[in-house]
Amino acid sequence: MSKNLQKRLIFGGIALAIFIPLVLTGGVIFQIFVGLLAMLAVHEFLQMKGLPTATIEGVLAMLAAFVLTLPLENYLKFLPVDGNVVAYGLVVFLLLISTVLGSNYTFEDAAYPIAASFYVGLGFNALIDARLMNIDKVLLALFIVWATDSGAYLVGVRFGKRKLAPRVSPNKTIEGSLGGILSAVLVTGIFMLVRPQVYAPYNVFVFLILAVLFSIAGQLGDLVESSVKRHFGVKDSGKFIPGHGGVLDRFDSLLFVFPLMHFFGLF
Amino acid sequence: MSKNLQKRLIFGGIALAIFIPLVLTGGVIFQIFVGLLAMLAVHEFLQMKGLPTATIEGVLAMLAAFVLTLPLENYLKFLPVDGNVVAYGLVVFLLLISTVLGSNYTFEDAAYPIAASFYVGLGFNALIDARLMNIDKVLLALFIVWATDSGAYLVGVRFGKRKLAPRVSPNKTIEGSLGGILSAVLVTGIFMLVRPQVYAPYNVFVFLILAVLFSIAGQLGDLVESSVKRHFGVKDSGKFIPGHGGVLDRFDSLLFVFPLMHFFGLF
Repeated sequence: MSKNLQKRLIFGGIALAIFIPLVLTGGVIFQIFVGLLAMLAVHEFLQMKGLPTATIEGVLAMLAAFVLTLPLENYLKFLPVDGNVVAYGLVVFLLLISTVLGSNYTFEDAAYPIAASFYVGLGFNALIDARLMNIDKVLLALFIVWATDSGAYLVGVRFGKRKLAPRVSPNKTIEGSLGGILSAVLVTGIFMLVRPQVYAPYNVFVFLILAVLFSIAGQLGDLVESSVKRHFGVKDSGKFIPGHGGVLDRFDSLLFVFPLMHFFGLF
Repeated sequence: MSKNLQKRLIFGGIALAIFIPLVLTGGVIFQIFVGLLAMLAVHEFLQMKGLPTATIEGVLAMLAAFVLTLPLENYLKFLPVDGNVVAYGLVVFLLLISTVLGSNYTFEDAAYPIAASFYVGLGFNALIDARLMNIDKVLLALFIVWATDSGAYLVGVRFGKRKLAPRVSPNKTIEGSLGGILSAVLVTGIFMLVRPQVYAPYNVFVFLILAVLFSIAGQLGDLVESSVKRHFGVKDSGKFIPGHGGVLDRFDSLLFVFPLMHFFGLF
């Protein structure tokens, strides 16, 4: 076994040994953990562009993702139902006010952290919402993403011919992508047999079509992050888990899948 | 009377003659009207940066503001309670996917329309939410902004000495700003006498403090937009109402005040 694979397996194992119990437990500690992941993901976004994080604007950007991620309305009862979004809005206002106070900070400078923190916060907030509904919704998303990745790899290696997005991710093929979708649908089908509640309020066939959509969304999330990294000329978004890259590298697909599941009213 | 003042009065009158009945009526037509205002405001943002609006990305940016503004969850019943935010999230995803499909469109290019449409959509959505609660909340915001503007002008002209934000808005003074706050508190106090329901769930004194906050927020919204315009070297954000500038010029203060009122649970 190569040193690199060994490192990947060991640190991947450690990460799962921390993440899985936290997901299973749920609750406030899990939510704060996810909020910290969101802050770290924004930190990676800032770093890729060469922006410092230890500035007022950098801290505000991370704070924006944190408050958008946490279901604040569950704790601060005076807030409206979309309390996390309005709190996010206030932090965005503070970033915008920096364009008045700072002599060298313009709306165009503020746009980058605002967009990054929204993208990250929306996805991680949906992860928490899914967990609040029940653990099955989180497992479903994880299974779909893992099945998509494995299926795409196995089919791509064997049958891959036509390039999917050569400019952004040169190794991916259309055949692999289809294999990923098929694999996701299969795994979703099996999961539905074990846990029929997971697809409420949909029926079996509609939900299998949704599984196709979720698998495509996961692949698009992956490609979007590849595009960001290629634009900035970096291989990994960060060094969160040795051998596995940054938070964004690990959660890129899920950041697209969870909000889509939320859109379709699964939680 | 100068030609310019005459033009301002006539077109200001026409605008109010359209806007006031729409606000009073409320309902779907009012909501779609506000959604179109939000699209126009994003159009102004794009134009100030010299970006075309008749592109896929331009249309997506305006669509993003439109779906964030409208209370979609009231009409598309399968959507979750924050239906407008998840719909906005999906349009943001489409903008991000453009960074994969388009050969010349990067995350940094997408960040500008994402930030602009969020800022605009959040504010106009809060206007609609305020109207759904009742007309008093909308009138309160309008009174606070108008009182702040007039009070700041009158006090500033007479007593203004120390510059407030010389780099962004050279004519504003600290004395004027304080006059604006005082004027907003007075007008709020009078409005509370006529319509005591307007300040529920707060008591009189707490609400007068909130009025101070709302007046400051209105002034900050105004300064943020001045900062944006100064950055791009334009005098007006657009030509929406002749003599009055663009949608952003007319709504800059309100885009800050409504979300803050929403944050404090007034609607």
